[in-house]
Amino acid sequence: MAVNLPPPDPKALYPVPGVELGIAMAGIKKPNRKDLLVMRLAPGAVVAGVFTQNRFCAAPVILAKKHLNNPVRALVVNTGNANAGTGKDGLARALSVCNALASQLKCKPTQVLPFSTGVIMEPLPVDRIRAGIPVAVVSKAGWLDAAEAIMTTDTVAKACARKVKLTGGEAVVTGIAKGAGMIRPDMATMLGFIATDAKVSPAVLNKLVKTTADRSFNCITVDGDTSTNDSFMLIASGVGVEVKSEKDRKILEQAVLEVSQYLAQAIIRDGEGATKFVTVSIERGRSEAECRKVGYAIAHSPLVKTAFFASDPNLGRILAAIGYAGVKDLDSDRIDVYLDDVLVAKKGSRSPSYSEPLAMAAMKKPEFTVRAVLNRGKAAATLWTCDLSFDYVKINAEYRT
Amino acid sequence: MAVNLPPPDPKALYPVPGVELGIAMAGIKKPNRKDLLVMRLAPGAVVAGVFTQNRFCAAPVILAKKHLNNPVRALVVNTGNANAGTGKDGLARALSVCNALASQLKCKPTQVLPFSTGVIMEPLPVDRIRAGIPVAVVSKAGWLDAAEAIMTTDTVAKACARKVKLTGGEAVVTGIAKGAGMIRPDMATMLGFIATDAKVSPAVLNKLVKTTADRSFNCITVDGDTSTNDSFMLIASGVGVEVKSEKDRKILEQAVLEVSQYLAQAIIRDGEGATKFVTVSIERGRSEAECRKVGYAIAHSPLVKTAFFASDPNLGRILAAIGYAGVKDLDSDRIDVYLDDVLVAKKGSRSPSYSEPLAMAAMKKPEFTVRAVLNRGKAAATLWTCDLSFDYVKINAEYRT
Repeated sequence: MAVNLPPPDPKALYPVPGVELGIAMAGIKKPNRKDLLVMRLAPGAVVAGVFTQNRFCAAPVILAKKHLNNPVRALVVNTGNANAGTGKDGLARALSVCNALASQLKCKPTQVLPFSTGVIMEPLPVDRIRAGIPVAVVSKAGWLDAAEAIMTTDTVAKACARKVKLTGGEAVVTGIAKGAGMIRPDMATMLGFIATDAKVSPAVLNKLVKTTADRSFNCITVDGDTSTNDSFMLIASGVGVEVKSEKDRKILEQAVLEVSQYLAQAIIRDGEGATKFVTVSIERGRSEAECRKVGYAIAHSPLVKTAFFASDPNLGRILAAIGYAGVKDLDSDRIDVYLDDVLVAKKGSRSPSYSEPLAMAAMKKPEFTVRAVLNRGKAAATLWTCDLSFDYVKINAEYRT
Repeated sequence: MAVNLPPPDPKALYPVPGVELGIAMAGIKKPNRKDLLVMRLAPGAVVAGVFTQNRFCAAPVILAKKHLNNPVRALVVNTGNANAGTGKDGLARALSVCNALASQLKCKPTQVLPFSTGVIMEPLPVDRIRAGIPVAVVSKAGWLDAAEAIMTTDTVAKACARKVKLTGGEAVVTGIAKGAGMIRPDMATMLGFIATDAKVSPAVLNKLVKTTADRSFNCITVDGDTSTNDSFMLIASGVGVEVKSEKDRKILEQAVLEVSQYLAQAIIRDGEGATKFVTVSIERGRSEAECRKVGYAIAHSPLVKTAFFASDPNLGRILAAIGYAGVKDLDSDRIDVYLDDVLVAKKGSRSPSYSEPLAMAAMKKPEFTVRAVLNRGKAAATLWTCDLSFDYVKINAEYRT
């Protein structure tokens, strides 16, 4: 059960002029399941992306990075198989998928970006995908179909859209994402795609994809496991209004950030086995990097995460995680910790005003914030994570079998 | 259920001349439970120790570090309360415990080393401990009692002993440890005590405690959570034979290492919820540090650990963990992975000889080895860890409540 994550309303998912979607049930891992997505882009569309830093990055990631240097005409995404840890054969299979789509669309294979998600180290069933491509190309799909076609252990499709007013008129920003486990994006998350019809220069888009990732997909963790396939792509089809001014750029940036934060948070809300959505906010550190270090120590600690699951205000576990985060010369006697607005630790010890019932009440809610104030600087960072429940173990002990 | 960890045989736990043990049921957290241990040392005994690197190190750790500069006459250990995250009040309480024991033993409080383990951030019930101390001092306890008196979520007492022949005659080495969760020692583990009657110089003992910790307690992880109270103490009472030669030193070192590795591994075998004892061996790396990085990435990954629990040879998860371990320029195409002797991944892809039934058979055993060969250098490292089971979540969601 995802935490406060209703299924997207298809009516609120605005189509993006210049981006045509198609899906198929290719039977990649299981029959009768949407598992193939094709996104066709208008000529002149601009695409920017960030990818996993995992040294075992998947074959499609290697190709997508390379093909991104060309004018991109299409993206093809399959679920059910990650085509990772598959060596040269995996690269050949990913390229064969690009070839199949390129011949349908009369473009070059190097103008197609491939993406895969699913089981690692199994050969990609390329024949099934090639057979599914013509079906996807002629199908007319919406963003909700697209979101559904890339799900793996996700229980809810993840999609979000915004409309913004630029100087030249209205533009839309619509995005989808998938991911529930193996989530600790290093540069981006396990498949996020956001498209706008606005006309944006490659330089602006390239910058935007990085700043956005750093404030959304790079701020979440389910289990600390950085995937081999993480990719976050930002598409500007360019058939709509142009981003003309700095003001336009900021308006668009805000919409893209809202969509990406919604999607990133949706991944956590639908985290494997999640029963709680927890915001971890670290304040008054010396640098954003050290705030993130402390935040991730809390967000990755199995002891803290099981305490979240139990609604147990086990402050000691939180303080211990802060203590081992690896921040040199961190003075534990200065640290204050809050659960929502309840001050639970003051100057590194239990607050004199501490009330266990109040602290527990905060943690019993499906959403709450752990806020640690380091009192040694002016930097801050916010992360989002979920708890560690029986179902996380169940899902991951049973997946694949 | 601990993995292949029978309770210690009290007859095999040799008493250590010059070290007198006493225990009490002080009712620190629960009644009718051995929860207080006093170790009295002969005059002239030498003690060396390593302690947690956690910035929230506990009050007793702070005092023990300080008191270690004096001739130590006694150690006092309580379970049920960690006296961590307790600020100045915690220090005063720990000192009050030292005072109580010192007045019984007619020594200075600064000659007493205090240790605590249990719940964090609760005030130490110092009156109960002070009342228990005279009881413990007059009691005559053995090493099994001592091991039992320091348990928290441990299900099996952890103790081990060796006899060695030095130039001057026979010496004994006997040790105890506790720990089952919050286990990822940084300098040492959550309470390990090893004593010998041999006469060893402070310089030799100080070196020995560090080299031993690095090859035993610093090679284990249950959940990646470095405790606030980790302490590993090596005691040489000096009432026995003297370590006279380099040969003597090596013989003693080997016995201390065997005892400490037994105890460190016992902590993993009894890891919270553990059903598997897994050796993670990383070979042919460029440095021991990078081998440890890769090993810990595997040993900390919740996805890998749930796959261990499920006996699921999910190679992708292991490779993904290697990939995100943070080793720069690691070439994934060179890495071979074995489960016991079964080659499962060759040059970063699934081995052509891969047999899932064979791989699964290896993982179904309660003990097996994951061996990753990086093929880029001559360094190696070995770690020990356990799986992540339903019971880990159950234990940690219910502890304290």
